Amino acid sequence: MESNASGLVQRLAAAGQSHLLQFWEELSPEEQAQLTLDLQGMDLQEINGFFERAMKMSSGIKQEKMDARMEAVPREVLGSVTRDRDSLKDWELQGLQCISGSKVAVLLLAGGQGTRLGVSYPKGMYDVGLPSHKTLFQIQAERILKLQQLAEQKHNVKCCIPWYIMTSGRTMGSTKDYFSRHHYFGLDKNNIIFFQQGMLPAMDYSGKIILESRAKLSMAPDGNGGLYRALGNQGIMEDMERRGIEFIHVYCVDNILVKVADPSFIGFCVKKGADCGAKVVEKTNPTEAVGVVCKVDGLYQVVEYSEITLATAEKRSDDGRLMFNSGNVANHFFSFSFLRDVVQKYEPQLQHHVAQKKIPYVDGKGQQIKPDKPNGIKMEKFVFDIFQFARTFVVYEVLREDEFSPLKNADSQDAKDTPTTARHALMSLHHRWVLNAGGHFIDENGRHVPAIPSLKDGTDLPIKCEISPLVSYGGEGLEDLVKGREFQPNLMIDQSGVHELVKNGV
Amino acid sequence: MESNASGLVQRLAAAGQSHLLQFWEELSPEEQAQLTLDLQGMDLQEINGFFERAMKMSSGIKQEKMDARMEAVPREVLGSVTRDRDSLKDWELQGLQCISGSKVAVLLLAGGQGTRLGVSYPKGMYDVGLPSHKTLFQIQAERILKLQQLAEQKHNVKCCIPWYIMTSGRTMGSTKDYFSRHHYFGLDKNNIIFFQQGMLPAMDYSGKIILESRAKLSMAPDGNGGLYRALGNQGIMEDMERRGIEFIHVYCVDNILVKVADPSFIGFCVKKGADCGAKVVEKTNPTEAVGVVCKVDGLYQVVEYSEITLATAEKRSDDGRLMFNSGNVANHFFSFSFLRDVVQKYEPQLQHHVAQKKIPYVDGKGQQIKPDKPNGIKMEKFVFDIFQFARTFVVYEVLREDEFSPLKNADSQDAKDTPTTARHALMSLHHRWVLNAGGHFIDENGRHVPAIPSLKDGTDLPIKCEISPLVSYGGEGLEDLVKGREFQPNLMIDQSGVHELVKNGV
Repeated sequence: MESNASGLVQRLAAAGQSHLLQFWEELSPEEQAQLTLDLQGMDLQEINGFFERAMKMSSGIKQEKMDARMEAVPREVLGSVTRDRDSLKDWELQGLQCISGSKVAVLLLAGGQGTRLGVSYPKGMYDVGLPSHKTLFQIQAERILKLQQLAEQKHNVKCCIPWYIMTSGRTMGSTKDYFSRHHYFGLDKNNIIFFQQGMLPAMDYSGKIILESRAKLSMAPDGNGGLYRALGNQGIMEDMERRGIEFIHVYCVDNILVKVADPSFIGFCVKKGADCGAKVVEKTNPTEAVGVVCKVDGLYQVVEYSEITLATAEKRSDDGRLMFNSGNVANHFFSFSFLRDVVQKYEPQLQHHVAQKKIPYVDGKGQQIKPDKPNGIKMEKFVFDIFQFARTFVVYEVLREDEFSPLKNADSQDAKDTPTTARHALMSLHHRWVLNAGGHFIDENGRHVPAIPSLKDGTDLPIKCEISPLVSYGGEGLEDLVKGREFQPNLMIDQSGVHELVKNGV
Repeated sequence: MESNASGLVQRLAAAGQSHLLQFWEELSPEEQAQLTLDLQGMDLQEINGFFERAMKMSSGIKQEKMDARMEAVPREVLGSVTRDRDSLKDWELQGLQCISGSKVAVLLLAGGQGTRLGVSYPKGMYDVGLPSHKTLFQIQAERILKLQQLAEQKHNVKCCIPWYIMTSGRTMGSTKDYFSRHHYFGLDKNNIIFFQQGMLPAMDYSGKIILESRAKLSMAPDGNGGLYRALGNQGIMEDMERRGIEFIHVYCVDNILVKVADPSFIGFCVKKGADCGAKVVEKTNPTEAVGVVCKVDGLYQVVEYSEITLATAEKRSDDGRLMFNSGNVANHFFSFSFLRDVVQKYEPQLQHHVAQKKIPYVDGKGQQIKPDKPNGIKMEKFVFDIFQFARTFVVYEVLREDEFSPLKNADSQDAKDTPTTARHALMSLHHRWVLNAGGHFIDENGRHVPAIPSLKDGTDLPIKCEISPLVSYGGEGLEDLVKGREFQPNLMIDQSGVHELVKNGV
């Protein structure tokens, strides 16, 4: 061991984590050096404190108690694309104006790996099998580019939407490399800012850090709520301030339909004078597994579906809707000043949530074991944990079929939120854009295909239709291309024109 | 050919159907006799008339025109389990009173075969793989039995709910045999009345009847709207009158959640003085493939999803709901007098709908060909075609997750409405019944399982829980069995008690 070794041994002993060195004598010098480095970068007392507080909070959660404390989102803080249709145009114009003044940034949460999806690279690099084979990153990049153009055209000024991308230690390298290889998809590389969320060790139920192998701690990202700490310790708030950013749209990488920097959402929040806002979709089935935005003890938060009883999930308002129906889709609005306050003042008050996991570990002989039931915890903060600090919180309800289709799992018969469902959701949306712009689809016999497809063959395969974000951000601008025209699927519309990719050549 | 042969030849010639005898000389005497019999039972002029009118109507349908003629269901004719909760108990009591007076019959549409499901026997005999392995027929029979008991207990009288089962020529034998072998599932066989819907030949686009083989016409049931003709020509209305039936609940065999003779639905219709009513579920996604109940030119009907444009499907009311959101689930209420009027007066006014199909046929050499695109039509009437004749029509909106999960297709990755979805829907409902009656589910470590299951593993597998209809018709009467108790799935509750079917034995 090196010179400061005895200090480390003492620190570990003081923190009750001496077991981390149990295989020390068997490690190679390189392994020893790496383990030392890993441990030196770690504030063990702080981590022990996280563990204690997180476990305490976790054991204090009682479903019955939570139910009594929950209140629905009041109508006056809610904007709805279905119930406030008269205001939509105003909100969009307001949002475009903010964008044209380069006051809006987007912030992408992309620290997770595609573990459940079954891939070892960042989820944003996943190709769901669209005709274009664009990845989630490319789709989002092109939407940003198009939205900049729309704002520029509207207001006849140059503008930019900076894109802050939070990765984790595990995904930073491959993410940056991917963007570089693809020339930032046409965006200015100076306006794409990568930063990195923190990591925390996994722990067993008694608070011991878990060894993944003899020489390596089991580490995981600290949850998407690690955002706030990372914003502070990597100078991101200063970068935003330098650029004059006033409003930030935060979203998760996995939603293929995400309206990045959605001008209507931003405009709604700005008009309402909100410092914090959440985009939601209506939850219509009580047992749907989605967290809901609501008030608890008078403060806004997201209550996870596992925290509420069926009786509460089934409660209805007088209008027949579920009382707790604001389904969280991880799409948030923050004012810059609110975000700065969070980073500077409130972040240390956030507590970690406990997620019980099956965590591979080494036994006393140094053999790795993969447990078949949960054996420890990961500690995570959530991005929505800061809603409680908002002074003016608003909720914006959009249509699921237009805006939310997350990619979470690999394709399989019982799986939800798969590459197939994501692909179908996007093509179905683009199909509807073409119809609403006055185009028609015809079958091989030249007959119009009904807008709502027949399911007589038992499948729900949408018409293959993909429109490049570089052509249309949200369905606008398609009339000149499709109105009065008839198309055979597959239809592809990109900057080079309208293409019918007919099977068997042509 | 037999004595009346020349008459048949002339009739065929007069009807332009002489090609049906083109292989006559090659047929065996038995085949000749059967073909003669089939043709003699057929009113060829009437069939030609059906064809002409159906094709005319079909070619007259224009999506754009239909849209302008559609009006939504007005609130005053709508009863809703989510928006009229204060009235539910009254409606249910009214319905139970009608049932206790033996005034209510149920009428099952079971003429279809499980072709899309991939089986050759009647769909009602299908086992979706519940722990009990009950078939759809058994589930429905037991619900009728239980509902009779509930009405009897409430009013302290004996009563009966006669069950009229419409089969087709193809399913009559196996259906009757199945019920007989299972001793009518505990029901009195005298109160189960089987009858048979008519058949019609398939025709090519020029109106020629299609030969399926050299000696056999291609025949198919005449649609579930064939009900009305069958009710008349098989003496069913007289049977109902003799029994004093005043109200009839009509439903399709394929819905595993169907509340047979639902007292709330019947009570609502009776209190409203309706002669005709439709149970619906809310359509929430514009492109969902479900027909909607609405008014067209001032008359109620079901508009199929293929008949409306996207713009109309997307129209919304001020409250944000889809304007045309009354999704038809083939669950109807008729007063006896209305049904009698339909059978006696209105039935002949009903027109056949045209369904283009791939119909196997014989070529000029007598070889059977299976076409790979539609080559002809089947003519069908629909059960809801008579809504237009109602004087007082009402609509009753229920929750999809509680009442509607049809079985249509075999299991496969892209399929909807499969044995798996039906099984999950039933078990999810029964799971909720247990929770709402105060029971809890625990995992193998004794911890409470959240009411809304985590999807962390990417699947949506419900807790295995099945409650016999003989124990509970609609969730009632479970408190004594489950309140305050903890169960490990699989849970099975039947007349013999509460059973935990723990994996690996007990």
